[in-house]
Amino acid sequence: MSISSINARNQFRGRIKEIIEGPVVSEVDIETPAGLVTSVITTRSVHDLELRVGSEVIAFVKATEVSVAKL
Amino acid sequence: MSISSINARNQFRGRIKEIIEGPVVSEVDIETPAGLVTSVITTRSVHDLELRVGSEVIAFVKATEVSVAKL
Amino acid sequence: MSISSINARNQFRGRIKEIIEGPVVSEVDIETPAGLVTSVITTRSVHDLELRVGSEVIAFVKATEVSVAKL
Amino acid sequence: MSISSINARNQFRGRIKEIIEGPVVSEVDIETPAGLVTSVITTRSVHDLELRVGSEVIAFVKATEVSVAKL
Amino acid sequence: MSISSINARNQFRGRIKEIIEGPVVSEVDIETPAGLVTSVITTRSVHDLELRVGSEVIAFVKATEVSVAKL
Amino acid sequence: MSISSINARNQFRGRIKEIIEGPVVSEVDIETPAGLVTSVITTRSVHDLELRVGSEVIAFVKATEVSVAKL
Repeated sequence: MSISSINARNQFRGRIKEIIEGPVVSEVDIETPAGLVTSVITTRSVHDLELRVGSEVIAFVKATEVSVAKL
Repeated sequence: MSISSINARNQFRGRIKEIIEGPVVSEVDIETPAGLVTSVITTRSVHDLELRVGSEVIAFVKATEVSVAKL
Repeated sequence: MSISSINARNQFRGRIKEIIEGPVVSEVDIETPAGLVTSVITTRSVHDLELRVGSEVIAFVKATEVSVAKL
Repeated sequence: MSISSINARNQFRGRIKEIIEGPVVSEVDIETPAGLVTSVITTRSVHDLELRVGSEVIAFVKATEVSVAKL
Repeated sequence: MSISSINARNQFRGRIKEIIEGPVVSEVDIETPAGLVTSVITTRSVHDLELRVGSEVIAFVKATEVSVAKL
Repeated sequence: MSISSINARNQFRGRIKEIIEGPVVSEVDIETPAGLVTSVITTRSVHDLELRVGSEVIAFVKATEVSVAKL
């Protein structure tokens, strides 16, 4: 399936640096110009998407999930 | 209250570029080295944290909220 | 940007039935074979994606966001 | 405890098809008229709710967690 | 619909103290033994559930949505 | 890094009672005046924050993640 655009406004393009695979969920660490972005997704998705170290991916989050802290 | 560290691993430091204030929630757009990050928080929080255009903030998300798309 | 696949495993294809537009976020109601699916996204995204009543869309959620209740 | 109604508007009734149990979280796959819905919940909840293959359940998500992609 | 139990382990029972209604989403402030708990839900849900100041409700969150900060 | 204030309005201060460590995510159970609060965070965060049974922490959630059920 090809998707032309998504509403997740916060997108970070990068390359997978590391995958820590668990029995149910896996941690996917993505090197982006913004620094390391970490995602936890189902291990089944890791396999379905054929994610590997080096894969080019986009990490994204909904704006409603982003918290703000003041310095 | 001062918090020494949080578990939200995905943190993006930046400056508020724009605030669109609604009656209940507001959109806060933050300029970061990673590009524009958008957060939707309660308008009450905008006031409590005294957020203004130019405020230095950190946008952060939990790893479980980050989705991954393959290019 | 074209995305070949996303890890959001729970996808519901349908047609937009109604959009309630607010100053910051909007409610988008989507008619799917599974019934009505409701999404709240930023009004800016509604405009960026040029969503209108009748648009064909996919609603999706991360597996970690899905709760389970027993009958 | 009996709950008469919840605000999670997006509800999918179905039967559990598979449970992949991990040490902390488990994947619960639910067969619904809308197709397969996947949830990740704590393994403790799987036990507390006595979820088993064949259990009748409702999968639900908050509208703020639903993303929209345009085809 | 009556639900016997949900997997959302973090439940806070209380009484609604205030509702700030917006065109799309509303803020619902709930007085609980744990202090004030704030929820943002669709205004449609506020109406569907007939929520009013004084209504007895349960606020709940999934464990995967709870962040941890160290003092 | 010291953060002066965060927008997550729902904060529960307490002490860690139990940690169930998995290969990717861990369950952190926190004793608070509001009762037991359960969080699922990455195991890497558990180590980075040096969380242990007895650690004083704050559990917090965004208002948009809080669901409401009527009794």
